[in-house]
This record gives sequence, structure tokens and C-alpha cells, in this order.
Amino acid sequence: MKTTGYAAHSADAPLSPYTFERRELRHNDIAMEVLYCGICHTDLHMARNDWGATRYPFVPGHEFVGRVIAVGSDVSRHKMGDAVAVGCMLDSCQRCDQCRKGEEQLCREGHTHTYNGMDRVTGDPTYGGYSKFMVVREEFALRMPAALALSKAAPLLCAGITTYSPLRTWGVGPGSRVGVIGLGGLGHMAVKFAVAMGAEVTVLSRSAAKEADALALGADRLLVSTDAKAMAKAGSSLDLIIDTVPTKHELLPYLPLLDIDGTLVIVGQVGPLAETSSVPLLFGRRRIAGSPIGGLAETQEMLDFCSRKQVLPDCELIRIDQVNEAYERLGQADVRYRFVIDMASLPQP
Amino acid sequence: MKTTGYAAHSADAPLSPYTFERRELRHNDIAMEVLYCGICHTDLHMARNDWGATRYPFVPGHEFVGRVIAVGSDVSRHKMGDAVAVGCMLDSCQRCDQCRKGEEQLCREGHTHTYNGMDRVTGDPTYGGYSKFMVVREEFALRMPAALALSKAAPLLCAGITTYSPLRTWGVGPGSRVGVIGLGGLGHMAVKFAVAMGAEVTVLSRSAAKEADALALGADRLLVSTDAKAMAKAGSSLDLIIDTVPTKHELLPYLPLLDIDGTLVIVGQVGPLAETSSVPLLFGRRRIAGSPIGGLAETQEMLDFCSRKQVLPDCELIRIDQVNEAYERLGQADVRYRFVIDMASLPQP
Repeated sequence: MKTTGYAAHSADAPLSPYTFERRELRHNDIAMEVLYCGICHTDLHMARNDWGATRYPFVPGHEFVGRVIAVGSDVSRHKMGDAVAVGCMLDSCQRCDQCRKGEEQLCREGHTHTYNGMDRVTGDPTYGGYSKFMVVREEFALRMPAALALSKAAPLLCAGITTYSPLRTWGVGPGSRVGVIGLGGLGHMAVKFAVAMGAEVTVLSRSAAKEADALALGADRLLVSTDAKAMAKAGSSLDLIIDTVPTKHELLPYLPLLDIDGTLVIVGQVGPLAETSSVPLLFGRRRIAGSPIGGLAETQEMLDFCSRKQVLPDCELIRIDQVNEAYERLGQADVRYRFVIDMASLPQP
Repeated sequence: MKTTGYAAHSADAPLSPYTFERRELRHNDIAMEVLYCGICHTDLHMARNDWGATRYPFVPGHEFVGRVIAVGSDVSRHKMGDAVAVGCMLDSCQRCDQCRKGEEQLCREGHTHTYNGMDRVTGDPTYGGYSKFMVVREEFALRMPAALALSKAAPLLCAGITTYSPLRTWGVGPGSRVGVIGLGGLGHMAVKFAVAMGAEVTVLSRSAAKEADALALGADRLLVSTDAKAMAKAGSSLDLIIDTVPTKHELLPYLPLLDIDGTLVIVGQVGPLAETSSVPLLFGRRRIAGSPIGGLAETQEMLDFCSRKQVLPDCELIRIDQVNEAYERLGQADVRYRFVIDMASLPQP
């Protein structure tokens, strides 16, 4: 199946139109027309080869929604016309302990990434959702609840599940005291989810500039992390901190905000963690953790939760020919809060 | 009550005999004759003012056992002649949420340290167990089970509870896979406890030199942390790592040894943690935590566990006039595995 798309051909080239072949449907595959695709900061890192592992041509996009346009012979989960969603995984071994308990994101063999991955059957490279058509194993396409606006839901599949999953893993519910560091694509979802779960939410920001935004998202307060007096006063006041900062940064100022047995969960930065101190960990039994996306079952649970509670990201809808400009703005954190590409702007092949 | 003891009078002076007054018994105090007192690495750090907070004269000793020689008017827990044990705390507020749930070590007001602390009633400095007599609030003296050898039990009150507590907090039991970094006073207790709890135990060491020692302590194996191939092979093989290294060190080599949702618990190093990476945290939902001693109830539970299972530290018994030599050797990690001072070597006042 021929599809149009957008690809980077080198680390310093802008994304440009790219036509390529999707595989013919296997018995358990569906094909979908991609209608909306979110732009994740990882897309930008990968297009620019920031982590040294990008293979070109590189077609980004690992949070997208669309409609089923074809089904393989054995497909039972989806039918023609169904609204479906795909996130960061296209496949996993389906046999290991993690896959068996629905934690495919932690598959012992490594899950198959939606882009820059390798098909488990053919070894061919995987290309992401900045494309007209997608072919994916049926289990890895989630059901989109009818009440969720397709034009806004795409970022749930990465920014959403990445923040929803740790809130669930660490048992957030009514009365939980949750801090969120960073108010970007991930951070704004962390705030919305935590609020929807009944938590008391504190946004941590280097200045008070985002206070109105934080409150508008439902947070109870914004705490200025450079205000030493306010930070000291807020000591031991949080049960969980979701740290969405995507660059190397200090953890030490934030750790004392955690109450005893509290956890700071890193979901943004992939790479170096600045030198810190064991003191706030020891004298409060505090923890630092990391968390990746979530499994298929939890992702479906999140979509259903979002439908029920009408939790949706704040999106800026763009055409695909605006993607390079969007990358520039994303690099400067100039978006509230997630770019979503209207894939109707991409020509048919 | 006059008591003899040993004190440091400055950061660079050796410990020397020191006679001072213990407070008169309050209604809820007991007095005890100290029979055996362990030497903790913290004693050394504090005597030398490594953390800049030592007040002189400084009388070390926060793990000791002895016999009750006097009781206050309202004392009900202990009677004359009882064997009792005291650890790192002499008091706490007894009112906060942590004290109420038996986590006095995490008292919201801060517990009263056994040395270099401040009495909650008078504000007087607290002096530790390198002394003939001690006066302590009855709740903070634990009952010594009859079957526990007094001459060996002292280190349980710090090295013991510091390693027992995280093993309990993180639910170690039969089938748990526990790693222990460092085979000193804390490390050797972590091994003994984990073995006694039914865990499979791996000692991590920079060389194979300690293999026989590790196996003798009951460990299943020693893994050489500088052997990259062996470390890679052991990836994701541990549920919990107890990190007893008392100096700044790299965590990164150890984190991939943890299985999904596994935790590395720091119990040794108080201070800087070297720069590390979020990658093993993110792609395995791994955690780094700290843990301080334990509460009174858990410390009593540990003593009872040690009595039942006959878990005791390996001690080198010394006279108090050998304490400065012992400090030198401790600084070079030259002890298997804990010095204990036979306080009969200290003259009566």
C-alpha cells in the first residue's frame, strides 16, 4: 500500500514530503487512515539525531488517531470505519511475563517502536504517523470512545499515557497531593489527569508567569521553584511529583517537597541526571523513579477515562506543511500545549 | 549521675577519657550500665566533624546494650537488671503522625539523636554510648531477648536496623532477589537478614576478593561489579539492592541489575550522589530511594527476629583504649565487620 508522508532525510534537513510503501496486510493487521497526529518532543530529538540512533529516512509520529480502512483475515477487534488510536508501540513479543500482564511497554524483548523501530517479522524499518496510511497489528490499535474528539485526542497516546501511567502506578486518587514540574505537552496533561482523579495539584515553575495557565488547567496553585522561602514552606507537602522537564536539570530543589515515602517520577528527561544528594532521600525515605508510557490495557483505560471525564489536551492544530515551523517553536517551548497535525492537509498518494 | 566515657574534644584530637554528668532520672527514664557499644562509621564522621555539625566535647556511640540499674517513678516497661538496647534515638515528639504510627525515626519535629543532639526538656547536649552509664526515656530502650548474646548484639541497633528496615519496607521474603553493595558493617548485616528472610542474595563487590566471605555469610553469589560481561548478564535479575557504600559513588553500573519496578536503596552514603542517567529508571520503572534506621516497633521486631533466627553481627571486640586505633582501621575498611567496645574496659567513675 502506497502512502504519502513527511520524513527527515538527515539530522540537519527539514522534514519534507516522502512517499513510501506500507506492508500488505497480514492476517492480524488493520490499515488505518491517519486523521490527526500529535507532535512529541521525541519526534524532534529523533529527527535531529540528538541521541545518535536515528536511521533515515525518518518518518516521525507516535501519537495518532484515524479510521480503519482495511482489516486482515483474522481481525476481530476492529472493523471498517472504526475510530482507532496508535501510540508508541506497534508490536511486542506477546509471550514474556510483562506482555502477559499487559505491560507491553516493558516487553522483555523490547517493544517495536512506532518509528525508527524494526518490524518483528520482516526486519523492515518502522515509519510513524506523519503519513496518510498506517498498517498495524490489531492489538496495538486502541478503540477510540465515541465521545472523544478525534481532532484533540492524538496526544493522549504519548503525552497522555506517559503522565497517566505514573499517576496510576503510584495510586493517585482523591486527596493525593501531586506536584507537576514543567507545563508543556506532558505537564499540562499531568495536571489535567491529576485534577480529574481528585488530587490536589501544585504546578512547579521557575517563574510566576504561568500561574494563570496553571490555574486554568485546574491546578490548585503554582509554586515558584526559585522562591526559596516558598519552597521551604512547601517542604514535605507532596505525595508524588511528576517531573516532565525534557532536559538535564537539578532534582535537589524538588526532593524536599516530597512527604515521607513520596516519589519524584521522571517522565521527561531521557539521559543525564544532575548530581544530587542522598540526604532528602534518606531522611524521608523519599524516592526517585522513572516511568515510560504504559501498556495497552492501561492506554485503553486512559482513553475511556478521558471520554468519561472529558479530559483532552489543549492542542494547536496545524497543517503538515507547517511541521518544520512547529519544530522550531517546540524547541523554544512555544506551544500551548501540543501541536497536532491535521492530516487532511497531506495529499493522497 | 556521674559517668566516665570517651570523648573527642576537637576534629583532629583522638578520643580520650571524659567524665561528665548524666541527668537525674525523670519519672519516665531508666538508667542503664552500658556493657557493649558498637562503633559506627557515623561515629568517625562526627568525631572528625566531616559534616561540619559536630559540637564538642563529643561522646560517640549510638548502638549499645546493657542492664537497667535504676528506673524512674512511672517506668513500666523495664525493671532493674533487665537487658536493654539503645540505638540512634533517645526521644521524639510522640505526637505527630509519624510517631503515632511508630516511625519515630521520621518524627516531624526530628527525633533526638543519641549524640550531638539536644535534650527535648532541658536543651542540654546528648552524649552517646561510649560511656559507663546512660539515662534514657523508657520507650527508647528496647527489650533484649534473652537468647541474644549481649556481646554481639550492639551493632543491631544501628547497622542492623538500617538494613533490616528497607528489607521490610520493600517486602523482602522467600524468593526475593536481593543485591547488597559493600560488605562492611551494614552490608554484612544486609546479607544475613536477607538470607534469614529467605531471599536469594547477591553481593556486589569491586573484586572477587570477598567471594569466600560473601558465601560464608550466606550469600548465593558474589558479582564482580567491574566485570562488564558478568554485570550485563545479570541485568534485570534483582528486585532490591541495598547500597551500603559510605562514600560518593556511581549508581549507574548498578541500576540495570534491577528488574522492572526494582529499587536501589541508599543506606550508606550521606551526601552527594554522583551524576547518573534516567535511562535505566525510565525503561524499567526502576527507583532510587533512601532509608534511615527504623522506628521503635520495627527495631524491637528486628531484635526478636534476630533472637528467633540467631542472626548476629560478626564483631571484633576491643577495649575502649583501642578506640582510636579502631577508628584508623575503620577508615581503611579493615574490620570484619563491626568493632564492639567491651565497656567493662572503661573504669567506673
